[in-house]
Formats: sequence, structure tokens, C-alpha cells
Amino acid sequence: MLDCAIIGGGPAGLTAGLYATRGGLENVTLFEMGMPGGQITKSSEIENYPGFFDSSKTGLEFMDTWQKQCFHFGLKHVMKKVELIVKTGEHFTITLEGGEMVEALSVIVATGSVPKRAGFNGEDEFFGKGVSTCATCDGFFYKNKPVTVLGGGDTALEEALFLSNICSDVYVVHRREKFKAAPPTLERVAKKENIHLMTDSVIDEAYGGMMGLDGVKIKNTKTNEVTEMKNTGLFVFVGLNIRNDVLKDENGKFICAMSDSGQVIVDLRMRTDVAGLFVAGDLRIDAPKQVVSAAADGSIAALEVMTYLQELE
Amino acid sequence: MLDCAIIGGGPAGLTAGLYATRGGLENVTLFEMGMPGGQITKSSEIENYPGFFDSSKTGLEFMDTWQKQCFHFGLKHVMKKVELIVKTGEHFTITLEGGEMVEALSVIVATGSVPKRAGFNGEDEFFGKGVSTCATCDGFFYKNKPVTVLGGGDTALEEALFLSNICSDVYVVHRREKFKAAPPTLERVAKKENIHLMTDSVIDEAYGGMMGLDGVKIKNTKTNEVTEMKNTGLFVFVGLNIRNDVLKDENGKFICAMSDSGQVIVDLRMRTDVAGLFVAGDLRIDAPKQVVSAAADGSIAALEVMTYLQELE
Repeated sequence: MLDCAIIGGGPAGLTAGLYATRGGLENVTLFEMGMPGGQITKSSEIENYPGFFDSSKTGLEFMDTWQKQCFHFGLKHVMKKVELIVKTGEHFTITLEGGEMVEALSVIVATGSVPKRAGFNGEDEFFGKGVSTCATCDGFFYKNKPVTVLGGGDTALEEALFLSNICSDVYVVHRREKFKAAPPTLERVAKKENIHLMTDSVIDEAYGGMMGLDGVKIKNTKTNEVTEMKNTGLFVFVGLNIRNDVLKDENGKFICAMSDSGQVIVDLRMRTDVAGLFVAGDLRIDAPKQVVSAAADGSIAALEVMTYLQELE
Repeated sequence: MLDCAIIGGGPAGLTAGLYATRGGLENVTLFEMGMPGGQITKSSEIENYPGFFDSSKTGLEFMDTWQKQCFHFGLKHVMKKVELIVKTGEHFTITLEGGEMVEALSVIVATGSVPKRAGFNGEDEFFGKGVSTCATCDGFFYKNKPVTVLGGGDTALEEALFLSNICSDVYVVHRREKFKAAPPTLERVAKKENIHLMTDSVIDEAYGGMMGLDGVKIKNTKTNEVTEMKNTGLFVFVGLNIRNDVLKDENGKFICAMSDSGQVIVDLRMRTDVAGLFVAGDLRIDAPKQVVSAAADGSIAALEVMTYLQELE
């Protein structure tokens, strides 16, 4: 019987593991199919994680220390996918791929979310090297420079608004004629003189070299006209895959309360409405999608697990 | 007119400043009487801040990078005490010591809390070098070793419970005959065989040398018997000064909704019930009092300030 099962190995899951094991829990296992680290390992530079201010280090190098630290206190790692979580009485039964079952007194789910890819040429090649899915993280690298945003929903325009405070001009490329963002968001966008809307348009190509992205080609699908934007950062917001599948039961119904957009409802203590089930990181409502906040969520969830286990005894 | 006034210079305030300025706000000032850094600068070693795993560095050295990073993007620092915050219409008027007034469109309060000192001999001398006020932070340094806890309230016993998972024995020293902690907490304590309650007792002295604390002398106030505990960590939980004075108006009434224990009620977005007023760090309800969570609060508050300001425009 595990004291705690942690599902997901990004900053939230790793920090939960650090706090749970350093706090004295003996049987704590982190389930993550690949190497732990999370989305941040795809970044070429990190500037806004407090206390880490070394532009020569990549996201992968940054997470290397985390892994050493988080596994230093006895956290175990199982490289298997979790298929199902069922609460029976006071404990949880976790089904892994292949059918193996594991029991745990508490569960922290930190599977996060993954930005969708748009599918244009060069997107994968320059991801983390000029193509970004986080304005808060990467906007500053384009201070007083023009940037391009791809997308037409609320997130795309919120991120365009964020970028408009930093960058000289923000070109928002959207494949349709109208934006599907909420009217208040559209009103705020209309007030910003440096946000330029390019409707009926798609990214034809992102191009560059060894040093990263050099520019993007934007194609108007009605006129077939191609506009070239040089030395621009490209921010892609075409939707989010919230990785909440693990919280669905065998009938596809969620085992805890969720928001309409598929995120888990938690309180400030990262508790869900199921006793013993905690959620940390991008999977929760109001997640700011920052490494530091995911890490904090993980620490809080682990501290709450310890209190929960003492109450169970 | 400031875009944002940040009050308090610990991890929460500094990170709020980092995110606000890096996010493009031009006029952001942090008000902190001394050098920024917060309580963590008193620690001799840090092991649970994710990504920072260097036992040779002290809390002061750790916060040195933070300060450089957080002031790198244009955050200003005013070394003055804030006396009063008044919201008039859509902006805030902030009165500094000496009567100077500053106006701001938004305010983030991150003044935190300070553990009370008990006043025994050696407390100040060995603070951060064997005398601690944070079991989560420092408990692991005493893995499988005995520790002493001073205090009789809920926090003291919660922290004793936390330590009982890590340490060989936990001696809880309390000056009275009975504990004032809540019955459920006392029940959980009673179940732990390695927690030993020493009532009617006080810390007579904490002693040690250059390397830190060597032991404590515990005196029974009824029998005058002195017990010596060697090589123990001493955790002091005799109350918390929550630094919420700045949120009181001229009549001593709080300007935003507070909990019964004097902490500010916030939601997951660090919003108070006053539009434009945000709170981050140990001053808020349910604060886990960790550097990483205070930092996350600061980042969230700053991101929310930016959205708030765009809606104001």
C-alpha cells in the first residue's frame, strides 16, 4: 500500500514528491511514462523562475537539478501509464497500463495540460526556439520587437494583450473572419493600437536556422497573398489538451468535480471534492501555467496529504 | 501614478515585482523598509526550494540571486514603511511614514507574518542554526534524531506531528499543564508513540558553539528539575505576528475581508474582496509558509494585476 501515488512528473508532481518524501513518507511513487521534467524541458531559456537567473542554461538543464533533488529523499519512479483511479472505502486502487493494480492511501494528480500544435511547416523544428505557447514566459525576449500570435479564441487574445505591453507590435493571425473570443476580451483588444488583426489567414511557414526562428510567412486564404514577418517571435494558441483522462471512470464520467473547461475544481489547499484526492499544476482551475506555481501546488498538495494521512490513522 | 504598488519584500513581493515588470508594467514600486529577501535570509541551509540544491549556500546567498533577478526588469524599491492604504474611486492612495502620499492603480500586499520569539537564552544566537520556526523546512535535517518543540497551541502540535514522521523522538515543551490545541489535533498526537509531552516546562537555555546549537536545557517550573537534551533541533511555535496592520484603516478596521485569525481571504487568483487589491504569501488564508508557495502567490497576483489594469483602461 502506497502512502501516496503521484501521477505526472512535471514541476508539480516532482515537487509533491520532494515534499512528501522529505516530510517523512516512506512509500511514495511517481508515475510518469517518460523522463520527469515536464513541458519546461522544451524551453531554450528560463528567466522567470525565481532564484534561477542563468541565461546560459536550457530548460532541460534546469530540470536536471530538480530531478536529482526531488528523487534524493526516496521518491520512487514507475515508468507506466495510469489508466484508472478508483476509490474503494478509504483507499485508492490505481490501474496501470497492462492491468497491474497498485493501492494507495492518497493520490496527487499532476498530469497538466499540453498546448495543441497547429501543424504548420517549421512548428516542431522551432518549438522552444522562437515558437512558443506561453506569452508570460517568453514575451520578454521580444521586448520592443514585433511578434506574431496564432489563434482566435480567448486565450490567444488574452496572450496578445499581455504581449502588447511588452512588444512593439502584435500581429494576430486567425484562419476565420470572426474571432470567437468573449466580447469583453475583444473590446480590450480593440483599445490596443499595437495589436493588428489578420483574419482569414494562416501560418504558411516558420523558417530559420541553427540559432532559431528567423521569421514567418502568413498567407491570406481568400486572396492567397503571402506576408512575410521577419525576426518575429511566434506564439501559438490554438487550444489546450487538458490531460484529465486519468480522472474518468470506466464509463467516462469524472470521479471529482470539474469546471466546464475540463479542469479540476480545487480549493487553496489543492483538495478536490474527493477526500484523499489532490490535484496540482495546470490540471486545476485558474492555473497560471507557470513553473513556480505548479511547484507550489505540488508542495501544498503533499503537505495536505500528510495531514490527511494522520487523520486517517 | 504607479501601475502597481507592492508592499513587502520577501519571496512573494519580489516575485510579484519580477512578473509585473517583466510583463511590461513600467511603474512598479516595491515598498520594503530594509533589504528585500524576507525570513528565508535567516536560514543557514535550504533544501526544499525546487531547483535549488546546493547545501553550501545560505538563505542570504540564495536570496541574492532573487534580488538581482527581480530588480533586473525595472522594479523600483522605496525603503519606507507604508502606513495606510485607501481606495478612492478607482485608484489607491498609499500613505508612507512621514506623511508622503503615493497613488497606485493596483496594490499587492505581501507583508507576511513573523513567528514570535519565546525569549529564552540563546534563542536569537542560534536562530537559523539549530533553532527553527519551520518544521517543513528544517525537520529533515534531524532525520532519525530527537528534536524539541516549544509551544502548546495547534501550530506547535501540528508541527510536532509533522516532525514525528521524520525524527526519532519529538519532545514537546509547554509551560502550562494543559494544551490549548484543538481536540482532534490532541487525538492525533496521542496516537504517536514518539511524541513526548513535557508540561509545566520551559526552555531554560539553548547552548552551542560556532557550528550551531548543541542542545537545550528544559526546566520543569513545578519541580525546578532541569532536563538536558543534547544534539537536538529546537522548533519554536509560540505564536505568529501576522503583519496585517497595513490593511487597517484610520479607525483600525480592516479594508478587506479577513479570517478570524487575521489572515486575508483570497481566492485562487489572489484577489481580495476589494477590486485591484491583491494579497500574496504568508498574509493570506491557508498559506503553507513555504518560499515556493509565496513566490507562486506573487507571480499569480502580478498576472492578475495586468488583467485588472487592462480591464480598467
